[in-house]
Amino acid sequence: MTAHLVTGIGELVTFDPRYEGPLGVVHDAALVVVDNHVVWTGRSTTAPAADTRHDVHGAAVLPGFVDSHTHLVFAGDRSAEFEARSARRPYTGGGIATTVAATRAATTDQLTAAARRLAAEARRQGTTTLEIKSGYGLDVPTEQRLLRVAGSLTPETTYLGAHVIPAGAPRADYVDLVTGPMLAACAPLARWADVFCEPGSPVAFDEDESRAVLTAAAAAGLGLRVHGNQLGPGPGARLAVEHGAASIDHATHLDEADVTALADAAPHGGPVVTLLPGVELSTRSPFPDARRLLDAGVEVALASDCNPGTCYSTSMPLMVALAVTLMGMTTAEAVRAATLAGARALRRDDIGHLRVGARADLCVLDAPTHRHLAYRPGVPLARTLELPDAPGADAPRRDQDGRHGHRP
Amino acid sequence: MTAHLVTGIGELVTFDPRYEGPLGVVHDAALVVVDNHVVWTGRSTTAPAADTRHDVHGAAVLPGFVDSHTHLVFAGDRSAEFEARSARRPYTGGGIATTVAATRAATTDQLTAAARRLAAEARRQGTTTLEIKSGYGLDVPTEQRLLRVAGSLTPETTYLGAHVIPAGAPRADYVDLVTGPMLAACAPLARWADVFCEPGSPVAFDEDESRAVLTAAAAAGLGLRVHGNQLGPGPGARLAVEHGAASIDHATHLDEADVTALADAAPHGGPVVTLLPGVELSTRSPFPDARRLLDAGVEVALASDCNPGTCYSTSMPLMVALAVTLMGMTTAEAVRAATLAGARALRRDDIGHLRVGARADLCVLDAPTHRHLAYRPGVPLARTLELPDAPGADAPRRDQDGRHGHRP
Repeated sequence: MTAHLVTGIGELVTFDPRYEGPLGVVHDAALVVVDNHVVWTGRSTTAPAADTRHDVHGAAVLPGFVDSHTHLVFAGDRSAEFEARSARRPYTGGGIATTVAATRAATTDQLTAAARRLAAEARRQGTTTLEIKSGYGLDVPTEQRLLRVAGSLTPETTYLGAHVIPAGAPRADYVDLVTGPMLAACAPLARWADVFCEPGSPVAFDEDESRAVLTAAAAAGLGLRVHGNQLGPGPGARLAVEHGAASIDHATHLDEADVTALADAAPHGGPVVTLLPGVELSTRSPFPDARRLLDAGVEVALASDCNPGTCYSTSMPLMVALAVTLMGMTTAEAVRAATLAGARALRRDDIGHLRVGARADLCVLDAPTHRHLAYRPGVPLARTLELPDAPGADAPRRDQDGRHGHRP
Repeated sequence: MTAHLVTGIGELVTFDPRYEGPLGVVHDAALVVVDNHVVWTGRSTTAPAADTRHDVHGAAVLPGFVDSHTHLVFAGDRSAEFEARSARRPYTGGGIATTVAATRAATTDQLTAAARRLAAEARRQGTTTLEIKSGYGLDVPTEQRLLRVAGSLTPETTYLGAHVIPAGAPRADYVDLVTGPMLAACAPLARWADVFCEPGSPVAFDEDESRAVLTAAAAAGLGLRVHGNQLGPGPGARLAVEHGAASIDHATHLDEADVTALADAAPHGGPVVTLLPGVELSTRSPFPDARRLLDAGVEVALASDCNPGTCYSTSMPLMVALAVTLMGMTTAEAVRAATLAGARALRRDDIGHLRVGARADLCVLDAPTHRHLAYRPGVPLARTLELPDAPGADAPRRDQDGRHGHRP
């Protein structure tokens, strides 16, 4: 097996407690990769021999970004809607229904090609793991198609039949579909299930409906995630804690009881809170209070929410920069949120860090420190380091029975 | 002479009034370039024959970005200061004095290499014209060195001896130096002069001092620019109007009289107002009110202010996205601000548009419309299109007596 030495690393972020500070930093570092896993880290002067040598000339090396919340499989474009919002013009396009119609009409090959382009775009910006949700089908065959496309790109596939209640569908009937036949058809194609929980919305799922979705999905063997507390206060965070969800996402509108429940659950594997600042930027909404969560001891992740309506960005470096400049996070907190905490939001311990044993998912910055991700906003500094025999993050893994990836 | 046909343009932004809307858009377009100038634009179906053919496969093509405000020549890095600010820790490093000390200590070759890297980085993001200021020397030989480095990268060189008053220097003595021997030494190396006008600051120039700088610089044949109204209300905008400056930059704190003066001067070639939203992002400051200026009829430009202290970004696409999402500009207004208005802020009529006769400075987006610059924030969509015989924007032009570029 080939041993690859990556050396000349100005700053290596490992999250290994043997090293410096909250990020486990080694300066003037090297690391050795065998079979796409980290087998050694340390000072370059003490590096062992290896078969190949890759000098990064003083660059910072981080764990690849873990983007734990995306809606990457869809057809069409809603730039006209974005433009109308930016010009404060009324817009009578269909919003999410536009994307659902375009997605249903697209062939699987078209959906795959479009999603593959976006996944490659994310990878060019340093993202090595993507979670991808369904949710633009809202019928059984299309939700299945979306999960098959997602599964061709990542093991972290999420069934989101409970994205919105389709226009004209009786609510109870749609909940029955999502928790019944659609779930049965989709569960074998997914690792996770998610629900858009937002009380009082004509399209989102209220507390009882969300509870039904989460209960049925858990019974089908899926791990749980929740979209909640995005547009206003609601039961999302509380439901995520009660149902043992891996993550509560958006979480802009949390009350004290929510934060206390999340903080109390945190030491026991409670939900990560996944913040999506690209949404607040793109929709001109108030940013979530990341400091309150961090100060309460809650694990905060950052993700892109890449989707054609409310944040059409794959850029994890932008999310780090926004978290630091507009949400009061330190650069170390933001880098952790985009890597280790993202991995925790996916209940993965093989990614999001560079301790010995980790997958060798490497993000190289055209800069000497991780701080430059926020210090140099907008500049494309991050890329992945592709070693010759690495399979790349695009390759999904299947376990022996052919189901995707890890079971939560 | 070779005629290059660029075709397959999904959306061509020309600012030609023959075409559609405020951006002069042609869909399904082509353009022909001869000797690095645009000689024809129109629908691809009506394009004339040419010697070479470059298909951009439906991409949007814009005028290259004109970044009319940068401080690109310096040594050192202030990421520790940025980090302290983000963590709300007191920071006793020297701020700008740190950069001045590092810059004075650097060799001209080191300064050139660093500036060249940043200029190339800007170009990779679609910027085809850079203005570059001196101002980290604050003594005659270093200011001259900085202008020589800047002049190797762009014709748009700005003498900014009046950046700050060096610590310990008697104010009057330093103003005498900046308006006397330093100006005499630097004027042959610069097209423009600039002054950091901010009343009540121990390091910036007050109204009388700023007036002295502007008067002396104009007498030396330099065009005028003003840093003003950044930290609070002040005379900067008013002085810019009175002295016929090409641009007033920052301009976050304008009162009604300032806006009226700028609006009254606008039809007569009055100052462009150059907003620098990367500074507000990086320093967590209130964004300027772009809408008030636009609604008053003032020409608003966007620039990066790339500098190691308050905005270490070369990314004009980020500035466009911030202008739309955080400053209330439409995407069309922001694209104009980053191209045509930037050219006006440099009093250039050969760049910032793609009418026949313009320089063929082309920015190609990995997207079908200009709107995607804001709709897809953080994603590296923009690049320049390099035609085989184009000299590139890095090449400064010299006129017959060996002085740089256009005289204002």
